[in-house]
Amino acid sequence: MEELVGLREGSSGSPVTLQELWGPCPRIRRGIRGGLEWLKQKLFRVGEDWYFLMTLGVLMALISYAMNFAIGRVVRAHKWLYREIGDSHLLRYLSWTVYPVALVSFSSGFSQSITPFSGGSGIPELKTILSGVVLEDYLDIKNFGAKVVGLTCTLATGSTLFLGKVGPFVHLSVMIAAYLGRVHTKAIGEPENKSKQNEMLVAAAAVGVATVFAAPFSGVLFSIEVMSSRFSVWDYWRGFFAATCGAFMFRLLAVFNSEQETITSLYKTNFRVDVPFDLPEIFFFVALGAICGILSCVYLFCQRTFLGFVKTNRVTSKLLATSKPLYSALAALVLASITYPPGVGRFIASRLSMKQHLESLFDNNSWVLMTRNSSPPWPEELDPQNLWFEWYHPRFTIFGTLAFFLVMKFWMLILATTIPMPAGYFMPIFILGAAIGRLIGEALAVAFPEGIVAGGVTNPIMPGGYALAGAAAFSGAVTHTISTALLAFELTGQIVHALPVLMAVLAANAIAQSFQPSFYDGTIIVKKLPYLPWIRGRKISSHRVTVEHFMNATITTVAKDTPLEEVVKVVTSTDMATYLLVESTESQILVGTMERTHLVQALQAEPPSWAPGHQCLQDILAGGCPVEPVTLQLSPETSLHQAHNLFELLNLQSLPVTSRGRAVGSVSWVELKKAISSLTNPPAPK
Amino acid sequence: MEELVGLREGSSGSPVTLQELWGPCPRIRRGIRGGLEWLKQKLFRVGEDWYFLMTLGVLMALISYAMNFAIGRVVRAHKWLYREIGDSHLLRYLSWTVYPVALVSFSSGFSQSITPFSGGSGIPELKTILSGVVLEDYLDIKNFGAKVVGLTCTLATGSTLFLGKVGPFVHLSVMIAAYLGRVHTKAIGEPENKSKQNEMLVAAAAVGVATVFAAPFSGVLFSIEVMSSRFSVWDYWRGFFAATCGAFMFRLLAVFNSEQETITSLYKTNFRVDVPFDLPEIFFFVALGAICGILSCVYLFCQRTFLGFVKTNRVTSKLLATSKPLYSALAALVLASITYPPGVGRFIASRLSMKQHLESLFDNNSWVLMTRNSSPPWPEELDPQNLWFEWYHPRFTIFGTLAFFLVMKFWMLILATTIPMPAGYFMPIFILGAAIGRLIGEALAVAFPEGIVAGGVTNPIMPGGYALAGAAAFSGAVTHTISTALLAFELTGQIVHALPVLMAVLAANAIAQSFQPSFYDGTIIVKKLPYLPWIRGRKISSHRVTVEHFMNATITTVAKDTPLEEVVKVVTSTDMATYLLVESTESQILVGTMERTHLVQALQAEPPSWAPGHQCLQDILAGGCPVEPVTLQLSPETSLHQAHNLFELLNLQSLPVTSRGRAVGSVSWVELKKAISSLTNPPAPK
Repeated sequence: MEELVGLREGSSGSPVTLQELWGPCPRIRRGIRGGLEWLKQKLFRVGEDWYFLMTLGVLMALISYAMNFAIGRVVRAHKWLYREIGDSHLLRYLSWTVYPVALVSFSSGFSQSITPFSGGSGIPELKTILSGVVLEDYLDIKNFGAKVVGLTCTLATGSTLFLGKVGPFVHLSVMIAAYLGRVHTKAIGEPENKSKQNEMLVAAAAVGVATVFAAPFSGVLFSIEVMSSRFSVWDYWRGFFAATCGAFMFRLLAVFNSEQETITSLYKTNFRVDVPFDLPEIFFFVALGAICGILSCVYLFCQRTFLGFVKTNRVTSKLLATSKPLYSALAALVLASITYPPGVGRFIASRLSMKQHLESLFDNNSWVLMTRNSSPPWPEELDPQNLWFEWYHPRFTIFGTLAFFLVMKFWMLILATTIPMPAGYFMPIFILGAAIGRLIGEALAVAFPEGIVAGGVTNPIMPGGYALAGAAAFSGAVTHTISTALLAFELTGQIVHALPVLMAVLAANAIAQSFQPSFYDGTIIVKKLPYLPWIRGRKISSHRVTVEHFMNATITTVAKDTPLEEVVKVVTSTDMATYLLVESTESQILVGTMERTHLVQALQAEPPSWAPGHQCLQDILAGGCPVEPVTLQLSPETSLHQAHNLFELLNLQSLPVTSRGRAVGSVSWVELKKAISSLTNPPAPK
Repeated sequence: MEELVGLREGSSGSPVTLQELWGPCPRIRRGIRGGLEWLKQKLFRVGEDWYFLMTLGVLMALISYAMNFAIGRVVRAHKWLYREIGDSHLLRYLSWTVYPVALVSFSSGFSQSITPFSGGSGIPELKTILSGVVLEDYLDIKNFGAKVVGLTCTLATGSTLFLGKVGPFVHLSVMIAAYLGRVHTKAIGEPENKSKQNEMLVAAAAVGVATVFAAPFSGVLFSIEVMSSRFSVWDYWRGFFAATCGAFMFRLLAVFNSEQETITSLYKTNFRVDVPFDLPEIFFFVALGAICGILSCVYLFCQRTFLGFVKTNRVTSKLLATSKPLYSALAALVLASITYPPGVGRFIASRLSMKQHLESLFDNNSWVLMTRNSSPPWPEELDPQNLWFEWYHPRFTIFGTLAFFLVMKFWMLILATTIPMPAGYFMPIFILGAAIGRLIGEALAVAFPEGIVAGGVTNPIMPGGYALAGAAAFSGAVTHTISTALLAFELTGQIVHALPVLMAVLAANAIAQSFQPSFYDGTIIVKKLPYLPWIRGRKISSHRVTVEHFMNATITTVAKDTPLEEVVKVVTSTDMATYLLVESTESQILVGTMERTHLVQALQAEPPSWAPGHQCLQDILAGGCPVEPVTLQLSPETSLHQAHNLFELLNLQSLPVTSRGRAVGSVSWVELKKAISSLTNPPAPK
């Protein structure tokens, strides 16, 4: 556009055809030019950020799609090998197990050799970063390749390892956002701005979820619920924009690649709209939610305990420290052996991919009612039209396989989470929840075979609805979120169960939140990452705790009139990053803060010919040593709630406490954490 | 439970049968007792708030349902009267118009005579309350009756006045929450806590929306988007719990009253799931969003201008000041005359109720394609199976009536918003949007009669999907929210259009937000309510503005060593609510704040036998005059963004600014507002 305008402006000097063509109507020309200018200004005014967010969404969608494509190819090759290798059990077993073992050990070795940060989902670390803690290099773009390659290998193992991609994708998205942000600020020449960066990171997290599930609504809400404890509507809108771009692009690619006719949901199903469920069923939905809540507590406890055990046990900890690929290979071998289809795998539907697991569990027919009269055969090959045949066993029945699937996958998932490689843990939990729901739904379909009589028509109970509720409730309980309900609707394209699913999720959350920390909080605790806990319960007594009660009162200040020898002593004897600068040793009136590095530099630059007692800090300051002004300060009377809000909202590291201008203490998140934990667990009287 | 435990404990003293019965197994007994105690404690620990929120949800659902019931009866009586009165046009006209005129003038007169706060929707006022401004009496429970009765009368006029109930219901819900909160704190004997109260109000707003639409998800998100600019995940969970209770109860009542077979969506429709729309249609959806955005700007501008005109015009302002019922009656007469069915009403489907408007517009068939071969008759009576017959006119066709409906309802709605009575404006806007969408959808169905060819099957374009997108986009643009998309899904029980609808809403919002303030913000501006604007655009230059640039530097301080005569002079010559107390006139070190009332009391209590210059403020303080500690203070170097965040988050009125302990200024939302507006409109150089 700029060129066009330039051309016209340039052309007004010399007579050209364009000029002649437009010559007769200069007013219209001016009008159009003005309009274009105005449009340009308008776009750039709204601008910048929107372009940035769109780029991010489109990029992540491309990556997500390309990864899915590559994984699809690898999985297909594995299936082909398994099919073609002949009938020898040993060969089949080897072809089934060697593939995932090799992929997992490569994934683990490759990603860990490049960066130690690439393991796990990355959401716990992001949570601490967004709460204001600086984790060096965690968002560096050089981790990107390791995470992408590692994750592709992990996911290419298919349902053998039973792991997902949400967490790592959130991490990838945030990495790209941080990188784009740095490029952008460098290009514009603006100074870095932390609050603006954080806004972008929150939007990027939403993009990560949205490009995996093609679900913009739940992408935004889930990332908000998981990442932050307080957020602005402005961030929420940005998130929606970026997530919509990402989800649209992701689904568009599927259409262009002729995988689909048009843009639809990922795990499409088709529930009855007129009478989706009967009123008394609400009770069963809530009960299902409660069951999911209890099971999630058991899962979270076992998971945390086992993770701790692996870290402290002599054998495993040594193995993990010295040869991660070996540990990964061993774990993968165990998991792959169990899922070998002609063996135990027959009873846990291990021939299904994770996508097929979900599709079959959300099926709108009741399997029990369908198998009542005729039992389907176990097909030699997977039947894509009747995926649920995999769940049926003539002796075990549907219930046997579902229950066995739950028990086995329960500990297998816990084992899989200890493997140090990039992997997401949300999807397997979602599927486990769907299986719980399906089990209960099928049981209800047997218990009430007459179903719902409405308007003279008998409608059988739909176990698929229970699978939906179970998936949402179990994953919601494990992650302590509610938006999983919305995710379930967006994934299936069905919202007729809105109220019962939401009630199940609330029941599950009520139980899980009162007994266990969430999956991500649990990982933060096990990994000993710094974090700021919530003030739970909101008891009125907590409003009476003030900063005075918990601040760190033993602070080190440097005064303007401190002799330089003393300053040197202070700097060498302590290792704080910043020092509080006060007016004078006597008054202790706070002036600002000084960074240790600046102070050390200034001290070193000073000529060593000090006459003792002749020079003081004031002289260094006059020499140009920078002093940061104090923009915020607490009083001893500030309440714990207020201080907590401030730290959460502004992502602070520490704040000075002043009383009548005098520096009397400081509060960092360490003190806040102590104060909050002593609220819930009052210290025992000694 | 307490009684049971008590009974057992009491019974252990004297031998009774219960004792004997349980005698043999004391361990089990103790176990059960312990378990019950634990459960009781657990419930009460999570407790209190949850009970409160549930009560609120159930109460609001009962009120909402009872109101719907009463309105239904009144509307039925009106219809009966209109039908039975005979064929005389005059009588029919009178029966059609007198009813709404009487109801509206009663509604206006009754509610305004009780409280002047009952007019309008109440959302703008709530928005300012939640931002920390105190509006006296606005949440007083005595307004409740006026609002309920007034709203019932307003809604009983049916589609004649074309008004909704969301806004007033949010106000009602918040009133009840404030009342319950006061009762609760009094019963417990706890001190009032402002931040806790605000949390409850946000949850109550969600309940208000959820009990009108039976849509918990969008209830929570819509109320958050409209009310606050920053919120905590904790509030969001509370909101979900309360909104779910409310929505469930509301729909449960409908089932118990045999209106429905089971719990389903409010405006149920049934779209194709397999191929709901073709990929190129996405472009039309976005274009529809853009059109809705432009129209919303026109609407908002006209609405604000007309509201201002009515307030400033000599005739109308006098009428509104002296006899509100008369103004209301005149406006209602105009609106009712136009909707008279045998007259102009024939062309604007005025026999449909608002619910039927929505149901017919979301219809999954294309009206144009259905009327191509055979034109349906205009039935004498409304045909509940074929509501869309009302939209068809043999000469005008569907397009004529839809376009005429839009044009007429556009200015009729603006006129209706000026009537001073309790009424909501969301629903009519939602319907207008649905009509815009339907119009464009039908046009597309004509333009592309071959529809979508997928898998060999031809599917016609569904105008209902466009109606859904139009409703969400137009209402989203007018209110500056995105969650209207979710509302559209929850209302219809169909989420297959998730992506296109979301994209339409985003397009509409992008246009509306860059050109016009939202409906609620516009009302705040017209009503001159205090509010804190956003920092728009987030330009990097805005990060450089610090408190120093905009603080109020001319502050009045009282020093401990100020002679009492001077204090009296200060108190009498200024009218601030609080004074900053400083250590001494010379040092100006900030000590705390004193309330004017306390200071005046203390001054009056002092014996009048002052020897000039002998007594100073210090003596009064020693006498017990209370000084509030300063819990938060700004520095001149604090940035505008930080200060804005603080004010928003903590709902502050004003903060002192100190530099090295000295009080140097103060910042209230007035200064902040000025600073923010000068950011966007830099002051012209003089």
